[in-house]
Amino acid sequence: MNRRVILHTVGQIIKIEAALLVLPLLVSLYYGEASGVMAFAVTAAVALVIGFALTLTNKRGDRRIFARGGLVSVALSWIALSVIGALPFVISGEIPSYVDALFETVSGFTTTGASILSDPAMLSRGMLFWRSFTHWIGGMGVIVLMMAILPAESGRSIHIMRAEMPGPIVGKLVPRLRDTAKTLYLIYIVLSALQVVLLLFGGMPLFDSVVYTFGTAGTGGFGLTTSSVGAYSAYSQWVIAVFMLVFGINFNVYQLLLMRRFRTALRSSEMWCFLAIVAIASTAITVNLLPEYAYNVGEASRYAVFQVASIISTTGYATTNFDLWPGMSRTILMLLMLIGACAGSTAGGLKVSRVMLLFKSVKRDLQRVVHPRSVSSVSLEGKKVDDSTLSGVGAYFVLYILCIAAAFLFLSFEPTNIETDLTATIACFNNVGPGLGEVGPAGSYGGYSILSKLVLSLAMLLGRLEIYPLLVVLSPSTWQTKKH
Amino acid sequence: MNRRVILHTVGQIIKIEAALLVLPLLVSLYYGEASGVMAFAVTAAVALVIGFALTLTNKRGDRRIFARGGLVSVALSWIALSVIGALPFVISGEIPSYVDALFETVSGFTTTGASILSDPAMLSRGMLFWRSFTHWIGGMGVIVLMMAILPAESGRSIHIMRAEMPGPIVGKLVPRLRDTAKTLYLIYIVLSALQVVLLLFGGMPLFDSVVYTFGTAGTGGFGLTTSSVGAYSAYSQWVIAVFMLVFGINFNVYQLLLMRRFRTALRSSEMWCFLAIVAIASTAITVNLLPEYAYNVGEASRYAVFQVASIISTTGYATTNFDLWPGMSRTILMLLMLIGACAGSTAGGLKVSRVMLLFKSVKRDLQRVVHPRSVSSVSLEGKKVDDSTLSGVGAYFVLYILCIAAAFLFLSFEPTNIETDLTATIACFNNVGPGLGEVGPAGSYGGYSILSKLVLSLAMLLGRLEIYPLLVVLSPSTWQTKKH
Repeated sequence: MNRRVILHTVGQIIKIEAALLVLPLLVSLYYGEASGVMAFAVTAAVALVIGFALTLTNKRGDRRIFARGGLVSVALSWIALSVIGALPFVISGEIPSYVDALFETVSGFTTTGASILSDPAMLSRGMLFWRSFTHWIGGMGVIVLMMAILPAESGRSIHIMRAEMPGPIVGKLVPRLRDTAKTLYLIYIVLSALQVVLLLFGGMPLFDSVVYTFGTAGTGGFGLTTSSVGAYSAYSQWVIAVFMLVFGINFNVYQLLLMRRFRTALRSSEMWCFLAIVAIASTAITVNLLPEYAYNVGEASRYAVFQVASIISTTGYATTNFDLWPGMSRTILMLLMLIGACAGSTAGGLKVSRVMLLFKSVKRDLQRVVHPRSVSSVSLEGKKVDDSTLSGVGAYFVLYILCIAAAFLFLSFEPTNIETDLTATIACFNNVGPGLGEVGPAGSYGGYSILSKLVLSLAMLLGRLEIYPLLVVLSPSTWQTKKH
Repeated sequence: MNRRVILHTVGQIIKIEAALLVLPLLVSLYYGEASGVMAFAVTAAVALVIGFALTLTNKRGDRRIFARGGLVSVALSWIALSVIGALPFVISGEIPSYVDALFETVSGFTTTGASILSDPAMLSRGMLFWRSFTHWIGGMGVIVLMMAILPAESGRSIHIMRAEMPGPIVGKLVPRLRDTAKTLYLIYIVLSALQVVLLLFGGMPLFDSVVYTFGTAGTGGFGLTTSSVGAYSAYSQWVIAVFMLVFGINFNVYQLLLMRRFRTALRSSEMWCFLAIVAIASTAITVNLLPEYAYNVGEASRYAVFQVASIISTTGYATTNFDLWPGMSRTILMLLMLIGACAGSTAGGLKVSRVMLLFKSVKRDLQRVVHPRSVSSVSLEGKKVDDSTLSGVGAYFVLYILCIAAAFLFLSFEPTNIETDLTATIACFNNVGPGLGEVGPAGSYGGYSILSKLVLSLAMLLGRLEIYPLLVVLSPSTWQTKKH
């Protein structure tokens, strides 16, 4: 493992963060928030110094990196991003506790949207902008951004990018990495701009439109008030619902559309499966909600579709306090948190394609039990999936359940009840945000102890980076001096 | 699939049940319970008639059976056992609702111990005996019993026995099936007799000793009063705690001890892993409970060890209302429910060896992520585990989680809360018995609707037979007329 290359990568990421901090600084300047301007300026300066110090260590050195180094680079980059990104909240005094600020920043970058604030309206405009901007940065991934803007450095790119991309298959995105990264950001920017325009068209103020677009595009969930999207018109709610689904679809589909390969794009079985789950869950919840909304199908379905889109895309916005819904609706939402949206989107969760592969491998195993000598293969998107990929998906699922169980066990020290702790763990690990009970849409994570906040921050990072990068960083064998 | 062979097997099982019903009939006779005598006599007669009708269909026919037929035979046998075994409760009028009686009987045979009764003391002696006797029958398995007592019929035996034995590996038990079945029952009877003697020695009445031994040996959990084992002396509690662990260990170990292969027996890594989990969980809970028991380590550890042994062995006895324990203890118990005890024991749950294999496959996958070109193999008990077994264990785990999620979703129609519904599902599926909240040790399953009771009965059967047999029976392709 080449430690210098890793430090160099982390340094570059921190330099990019310094540049990105200029945007909230300008927002603070525009709104005349002196303490915000100062906080962002100081943080950007700190980031620049650390960034240059780290990149100087390996100025003309080796740039090659292998699997383990790629995983470590990504994990350390995300930790560094969060540790530095939390500073403005503390420096400005708006979130005095550093652990709280770190939780909020990790929640931002990982696009979770879980908050320790009882009311986000307490924050200044600049801080609200930065909080939501971290969603937008974290959604597509800061390393993908680095690939897109910095000169291509073959060798390290693929291992790093693979470690940050969500989902089991990188697929067609692998060749010509830099072009791919640029295309992905292009799609991301165009779709985001489209959403801002549509929200403005519905009468939403510019600041609100941008902030809610950041939250939607990154499938994050930070809002401006406790009523979240419930404060806006039915039109705005529908726009946000549709865009949460749009950003939950594999970006491969949009790339194919850009290349005018419409038929291939529309043949994405993961997309159709995702939309089918959304349709079924929305219908079930609408029916379940009818008595609550005086049998007004229009209203019940608006609440149901919005919440299903929000939870399965792991965004976490709410138009009403779904924690008060009947048991079946709440259980369906809890199960949707685990599924998540498509691989290669900005969403968290297990990912639909992984769930499809798990179902297919179960089906194959059932066949093997009935016909012990039968041989059958599993395919996805028309391609045969080899056994090593399948067993990797199975092992990931086991790890996923283990991580949730471990974090849940940690939270059991808290005086909160099992429902709150379990949904808090699931909501953080799958980067959803709100859970049920005390961490429901009307509550916050502010009541947890410092230790639990750190555990949940780790859970959010584990979920966003799909476990392995952090596991490698935490494994003692990675830090042994013996070279591999 | 040879339907006649399947019906013949089910018929034989029902005839065995008729014979087994003589025992509770004698108990009712001894205690002078007329309605009980009548109920058991009528049920035995019904069972005999059905049994002979089914076996006559294939008197001199083919006896060969293949994988699918074995699975179907086992599933139908267990369903038939429960459907008939529920009759005495209804005929005697002691449990008037047939669905309630069925739930109680399925809970008995699957060694779950979940009860719809608010107080078991309402039942007559004969019924209490039958209820607990079903635990003892279901623990080792009625098909293993058939193998042991009926003339060996090669061909069908292995596929049937494999479908009923809990755990991922049948291992050394395969050759000379009938001898193995006899040895298993011999060990089972000797250990049970030993427990009865030890309980009598401590002053427990004979009837109570036998009933609690049935519950312990089958790792079931039905007791005589609401206070369960809490009503007896500390000595009796320790005896039961130790025997719950004894019956949670792979019977392979006892078989090896019988063969005087002590070193091989003591090298069982599954046994040591099981005991290590028990030790760690007991210590953690003891520490967590100290403030509750005025820092009396002896008392806290007695409660902790008993409850850990009871839950990990999936027995479900209680010496106190552990639902009132602090959060960490309750969460640990909930996680132990999922693990269960050793394969090849009478316990339910995932089984320790399966959990070990899941951990090992995760470790291997992690290695593959770090060193993409590395090749490593997984071994258990000193033997290499092939990829198809490993992927089978992975697929089973996925199915296991899916079944729990599906049953949990069904229960969400109920007005009970998430904690109650989730632990009810986990406790039934893993054949534990009591959960937390309303289905805790002080509560009962009586409050659930008829539909939920049937769903939970299915969950208990799925858990006891390790999913596949019932899944094959429920799959439409099994019943298509086309022959395979």
